[in-house]
Amino acid sequence: MDDVAWGDPLLDPLFTTAPAAGLFAPRARLQGMLDFEAALARAEAAVGVIPAAAVAAIGKACNASLYDLNALGGEAALAGNTAIPMVKHLTRKVKEADEEAARYVHWGATSQDAMDTGLVLQLRAFVQVLDADLERLCGSLADLADRHRATPMVARTWLQHALPTTFGLKAAGWLDALTRDRERLAAAKGRLALQFGGAAGTLAALGDCGMAVAEALAKELDLPLPALPWHASRDRVVELATVLGLLAGTLGTLGRDLSLMMQVEVGEAFEPAAPGRGGSSTMPHKRNPVASAVLLSAAVRAPALVGGLLAGMVQEHERGLGGWHAEWQALPDLCQLVAGATHHAADAVGGLEIDAERMRRNLDLTQGLIMAEAVTMALGDRMGRMAAHSLVAEASRRAASERRPLRAVLEEDKRVTEALDSSALDRLFDPLGYVGAADAFIDRVLGRK
Amino acid sequence: MDDVAWGDPLLDPLFTTAPAAGLFAPRARLQGMLDFEAALARAEAAVGVIPAAAVAAIGKACNASLYDLNALGGEAALAGNTAIPMVKHLTRKVKEADEEAARYVHWGATSQDAMDTGLVLQLRAFVQVLDADLERLCGSLADLADRHRATPMVARTWLQHALPTTFGLKAAGWLDALTRDRERLAAAKGRLALQFGGAAGTLAALGDCGMAVAEALAKELDLPLPALPWHASRDRVVELATVLGLLAGTLGTLGRDLSLMMQVEVGEAFEPAAPGRGGSSTMPHKRNPVASAVLLSAAVRAPALVGGLLAGMVQEHERGLGGWHAEWQALPDLCQLVAGATHHAADAVGGLEIDAERMRRNLDLTQGLIMAEAVTMALGDRMGRMAAHSLVAEASRRAASERRPLRAVLEEDKRVTEALDSSALDRLFDPLGYVGAADAFIDRVLGRK
Amino acid sequence: MDDVAWGDPLLDPLFTTAPAAGLFAPRARLQGMLDFEAALARAEAAVGVIPAAAVAAIGKACNASLYDLNALGGEAALAGNTAIPMVKHLTRKVKEADEEAARYVHWGATSQDAMDTGLVLQLRAFVQVLDADLERLCGSLADLADRHRATPMVARTWLQHALPTTFGLKAAGWLDALTRDRERLAAAKGRLALQFGGAAGTLAALGDCGMAVAEALAKELDLPLPALPWHASRDRVVELATVLGLLAGTLGTLGRDLSLMMQVEVGEAFEPAAPGRGGSSTMPHKRNPVASAVLLSAAVRAPALVGGLLAGMVQEHERGLGGWHAEWQALPDLCQLVAGATHHAADAVGGLEIDAERMRRNLDLTQGLIMAEAVTMALGDRMGRMAAHSLVAEASRRAASERRPLRAVLEEDKRVTEALDSSALDRLFDPLGYVGAADAFIDRVLGRK
Amino acid sequence: MDDVAWGDPLLDPLFTTAPAAGLFAPRARLQGMLDFEAALARAEAAVGVIPAAAVAAIGKACNASLYDLNALGGEAALAGNTAIPMVKHLTRKVKEADEEAARYVHWGATSQDAMDTGLVLQLRAFVQVLDADLERLCGSLADLADRHRATPMVARTWLQHALPTTFGLKAAGWLDALTRDRERLAAAKGRLALQFGGAAGTLAALGDCGMAVAEALAKELDLPLPALPWHASRDRVVELATVLGLLAGTLGTLGRDLSLMMQVEVGEAFEPAAPGRGGSSTMPHKRNPVASAVLLSAAVRAPALVGGLLAGMVQEHERGLGGWHAEWQALPDLCQLVAGATHHAADAVGGLEIDAERMRRNLDLTQGLIMAEAVTMALGDRMGRMAAHSLVAEASRRAASERRPLRAVLEEDKRVTEALDSSALDRLFDPLGYVGAADAFIDRVLGRK
Repeated sequence: MDDVAWGDPLLDPLFTTAPAAGLFAPRARLQGMLDFEAALARAEAAVGVIPAAAVAAIGKACNASLYDLNALGGEAALAGNTAIPMVKHLTRKVKEADEEAARYVHWGATSQDAMDTGLVLQLRAFVQVLDADLERLCGSLADLADRHRATPMVARTWLQHALPTTFGLKAAGWLDALTRDRERLAAAKGRLALQFGGAAGTLAALGDCGMAVAEALAKELDLPLPALPWHASRDRVVELATVLGLLAGTLGTLGRDLSLMMQVEVGEAFEPAAPGRGGSSTMPHKRNPVASAVLLSAAVRAPALVGGLLAGMVQEHERGLGGWHAEWQALPDLCQLVAGATHHAADAVGGLEIDAERMRRNLDLTQGLIMAEAVTMALGDRMGRMAAHSLVAEASRRAASERRPLRAVLEEDKRVTEALDSSALDRLFDPLGYVGAADAFIDRVLGRK
Repeated sequence: MDDVAWGDPLLDPLFTTAPAAGLFAPRARLQGMLDFEAALARAEAAVGVIPAAAVAAIGKACNASLYDLNALGGEAALAGNTAIPMVKHLTRKVKEADEEAARYVHWGATSQDAMDTGLVLQLRAFVQVLDADLERLCGSLADLADRHRATPMVARTWLQHALPTTFGLKAAGWLDALTRDRERLAAAKGRLALQFGGAAGTLAALGDCGMAVAEALAKELDLPLPALPWHASRDRVVELATVLGLLAGTLGTLGRDLSLMMQVEVGEAFEPAAPGRGGSSTMPHKRNPVASAVLLSAAVRAPALVGGLLAGMVQEHERGLGGWHAEWQALPDLCQLVAGATHHAADAVGGLEIDAERMRRNLDLTQGLIMAEAVTMALGDRMGRMAAHSLVAEASRRAASERRPLRAVLEEDKRVTEALDSSALDRLFDPLGYVGAADAFIDRVLGRK
Repeated sequence: MDDVAWGDPLLDPLFTTAPAAGLFAPRARLQGMLDFEAALARAEAAVGVIPAAAVAAIGKACNASLYDLNALGGEAALAGNTAIPMVKHLTRKVKEADEEAARYVHWGATSQDAMDTGLVLQLRAFVQVLDADLERLCGSLADLADRHRATPMVARTWLQHALPTTFGLKAAGWLDALTRDRERLAAAKGRLALQFGGAAGTLAALGDCGMAVAEALAKELDLPLPALPWHASRDRVVELATVLGLLAGTLGTLGRDLSLMMQVEVGEAFEPAAPGRGGSSTMPHKRNPVASAVLLSAAVRAPALVGGLLAGMVQEHERGLGGWHAEWQALPDLCQLVAGATHHAADAVGGLEIDAERMRRNLDLTQGLIMAEAVTMALGDRMGRMAAHSLVAEASRRAASERRPLRAVLEEDKRVTEALDSSALDRLFDPLGYVGAADAFIDRVLGRK
Repeated sequence: MDDVAWGDPLLDPLFTTAPAAGLFAPRARLQGMLDFEAALARAEAAVGVIPAAAVAAIGKACNASLYDLNALGGEAALAGNTAIPMVKHLTRKVKEADEEAARYVHWGATSQDAMDTGLVLQLRAFVQVLDADLERLCGSLADLADRHRATPMVARTWLQHALPTTFGLKAAGWLDALTRDRERLAAAKGRLALQFGGAAGTLAALGDCGMAVAEALAKELDLPLPALPWHASRDRVVELATVLGLLAGTLGTLGRDLSLMMQVEVGEAFEPAAPGRGGSSTMPHKRNPVASAVLLSAAVRAPALVGGLLAGMVQEHERGLGGWHAEWQALPDLCQLVAGATHHAADAVGGLEIDAERMRRNLDLTQGLIMAEAVTMALGDRMGRMAAHSLVAEASRRAASERRPLRAVLEEDKRVTEALDSSALDRLFDPLGYVGAADAFIDRVLGRK
């Protein structure tokens, strides 16, 4: 692996993580293919298709650091894929050490076998790296959900104040979605299988030994053995892309909410501060929501990349033209940006600053209008929901236009005071008294119910 | 349900199916919401939140045929969603029959509860309808895979002749991908859960009875009860969209392959003919691949719709602004076009005309070049893969430039004739002798192994 | 034209406009094709290709209200496009009146000629309708820009307070972008040309008269005559889609800004109120930003539709398979939703309620921090930008942490007081004194400079 | 500029060009921003805002090779953009040489001014590089169009034989679309304007000199001066993306057609051969359409990237959060892949091998059915189009089912022979006799009419 794996040293540190960048660096791509070739030799020797003596020399040459990426890339530009020059250079390298062994390099395989299996190995490692950050993020959210059960705040719908909720429930909602995303990630990972079919997907070059080699190879690489090769059926890798797309959407929602809560006018939650973090070149007082920007950026970019990968699925006959090629950069790009967003999310949530006091104060901004439904429901028991709705709606309009507290307006209405005494109104205007099943929901998400 | 449910009577019959169009027609959307309202009344009465006496009148009014869609739509344009006018009109209708019952319409629920749960009910029915066509399609493919095990044909990579394969294996490949799509469809369906959270996702309006009503309601509708409401976490419905996107990709590959095989110059397989089907307005001899066009069209449109739905996932706080709205037409559109493509695929594959004789003849078009790998592998045993590759490559170039059969050129080379006698060459130039594990792969897909 | 043209009576009134829905209704699509056929007959008669006597009967039958859409749609589902049954039914209808004339229906044309030219006619009318709403929107914005030159408000970057600006400049910025969108719209409209090439794009069926008929037909329909038919070159129509995509992005920015300004905590601008508009089913105090939701929804959906149309451009040979089909619903869908967003924008901006007082108060929320740059620049003259930046940054941090006004903190620093006296600080802390070229920019946008 | 500018040395040589990769390399991005800073200093000195003495030291430090990209990238990851660390490091570098000059670095500008203007400079250079390849491609196509006016070939619609056309007309069709793409490219380039607004888009930090500096700066950089800054109005750069998307679609159509013509069964045109080009690792006889793959790959990826950029246009207030960030990698990615596709197209078309003989032979594959329309039209003059259509359709069906030439079947029908004598039939069955206005169309595209 190169010392610095960033493809773009200026932007990648912001948008991805070093581990993800490392996993998808050009040299790692090459290593993935070489891992396939080494395992293939071992599997074929085990089955008796190639001499056992060939394994060592091939294995030794399957080391990406031995090759000149620029030379390989130049030849790939003519050949149309990276495996063709890889096989040539690998064979040459093996030949230097063991001319006989060189005969058995890539035996019975096709370019796409090496490229797809190499990719699957990269993706498997990536899912592990990603899930570690997801676990960290989920842990922080579980903690917030539990700790802030009794932190009332405004629930907002259509970007308008709706009713009270708790910050614990908000955190539980993010956590719940992420939990489903992790389930999907595991399911998609389970369908990332060995690619091994030879030039036409029949393993014909291996004669009667095709299945035996395939089984041994799957075992060597600890990959599922598919029912048949999937050269032109791209759903296995594109499914992972769709799951990353869903995850990016979940993270985008988190980023949107954080950035909205971090507005000067709202001031309820803040990404963690650090020297050099989120400053402005000209406005010294600013504290920019950098993590939110990365999350939102990923949520803009990921859907498009997923759409492109889905569009590329239409691949002709036994190996596609164009659609397959369209995956080679787009899928690693997608993985890297989702890794970056997940990492930023874990950092931001892990160090989130909550201003519970400000949350409480924001509940009062509408002078009680936010409790209108509580009153409506209480009155509804007496006069029916629609009638109560009309009464409270009218009172709300008056309270708003006269800039008076809703409670004061309501207390002037006999229909109200006959139904609800002062202590009943006290209870109705206490936000934490009107968060319903919030606690039960949190328990369900935390698996305590 | 209206007599004719087509939203667009000119194009929908081509692009979707009557059942899918029916399930997503405006009146069906309304009925989905009304089913929610009726079940809510039953659940709340069971729990004791509303009087049992209210159930009948509410239930009776929850019939979409009683309402004027144009009136509802006009009010929805002002209200910003369809549930607000629905609740108004429903309440009015209930009131006509039972003034007391009208008080309990939509009790404790919010617009999005009715809209999302209604949608979930539509989607559940849709998945069932879709899966029936998928089952039919898979059945036909399984039949083709089995029947055409010994039908050799050209395997094509990069749209060029590669090696022989069998049509059975080709069919098995399509089937294998569809089988995974069906698994994903079932998983996504399993995550389509009840939406019930009230105005802020807390069920506050139901006081202590929120969870009990939610449980009863889930049971009434036979829907999973989620850990908590998912108003702003759209992964449940968007996951279904992604699965439909993957399915559209699989179907697109099928359509692309069929249309390529149906080219005049290839002539290996044909969509079923029927009067009025695939004709041209000016070219009487034409037989257009109409089903393929629909499959390919869906494969172009679906990725974009999926991308849009993923992009819409970024929804603010407790209810989103814009992102949610973006689902209302896009998701039904996606469902309908995938239903249409699946149906066309099932019809086309079910009646597919195979020209096995032409498949066989096409194998000969390169005068034996397609068997070059078979020869290379056989020679490779003697002289190593790279040397054999060079020898056969050179022979292939000569054969091509001199327009002679590869076998004839090879037989002039002593290195070949010393290694392979005439009967060995016979076997090497028999396509069915070089399809490797094709049969085993078919068995695996058919579950016979 | 049908009485109600809504394809979806529940949702279309929210998401599109009646004129746009009318222009793209199934019957209007049919009429577009019939307009082509009628003009073709006139053009061919003028050139002498068909008898002049045939024109009247053909013209009379080219009336969409004479046809059964369901019958046409059913046949289109088999034929694969709508023009094939259209030509059949039209010919039959003409025959009823004039058997001789029926011979000359669709003479020398192909399905795609009728469909594409019909579409171009629909699109041309659509651009006119759309531009009328754009003109109204731009007029309102110009008015706001001019009227609010001296209405200071917070400029926000990264969703954080940055510096002062004016609401006039904000409005001018929206206007400036829309002006470019209108230019692009006009350019795209100018490339919407006649489609007329016959079955293979050669006009072969017209012998030597092809060009003459094409010229006459272009004149009849007042459409540009292209250099050659563009059956498989879809850039003309997809360009319009991209321009609509850009417009949707501009409108989305407007919608996002409006909805952010309309937050309870911000309260600077409000969509116009109306009975039934933006209410909530359960929260009587709410006033939902319905127009913003529609704008944002369009900005989510349009990019995906544009992406799908671009993806569909890869069309095979002389007429595409699938890619062309993918346009038929997606392009009208896109037009309609952009029409809806534009209309909502024009209404919302036309009736926008501005709370200039609140804008002014929000400027004070950071206790002067928003004027930090003004001070930095003033100090920078003396001590260099970076030193001044450090000084003010440190003062800003203290002001923030001690919750004191920035000015008070600054006045304790001798380096400041030596450089700036009290009246200088007065000027530096006046927002309208620090809006630079805002007025000049507004003048430039309004064309007054 | 680094010696090797490839971001990904394995894949970039296949998918982009060295000039495009160089223009968008990290160091070039940095240089773009530095070019802005140097020009800003010159402009401000010219207007008298900063001392003339500061210009030299600033200008000298505005050399990207002086900076450590990894250090900048690490700080950008915290700051949230690349300009903040750039300004810091630049100021430090200037200070080393001239402490006084360092005070005036980035005077009155904001991060986005440097980043956007830097990007605009990169894009302007890119359009020039791209257009050179487009010019080369168009030149080759013009040549083919002219040379192959009399090369008849099959026109294919729905991937089926339709009628004869000429290869010249096919080439003219591609050329015509590319010509429009070049027009759009020029229009989009014309709207790529200076970005200069300071922290809030008001140029407040420059006091009364804002407009004067802006004008001087635009002149320095030879960029259009916009009416006002466009920080949150992204249509200028996204328009370029849409134009690239349209171009990718045009190129994708070309790639699709080439790859279809290059099929073994069709064999009408071939990408140029070269050593190492398009070979297979296991199938020595293969010649893969590498350029077509790249074109098709770009046509899959570009629409998605365009969709993502359109989706990112919704940018908040005076500077967006996430949407802006989403451009930073996606737009350069798009530029690079379209550059690669254009270059491959120019190479492939420039060296295209045409098999005119095979084109001629393919016309006969349907045994005359392809001339059915010619006969229909000739007969139609006598018996009306629909009657002639029926007669020829019936004859075509018989010819197809009996595998006989259409002419033979027709000659058995008295209605035919009465209308058309043998020499008339000769003419009707000559493909070049039925290509209508093909030549005139070619002339129009070549500008000869």
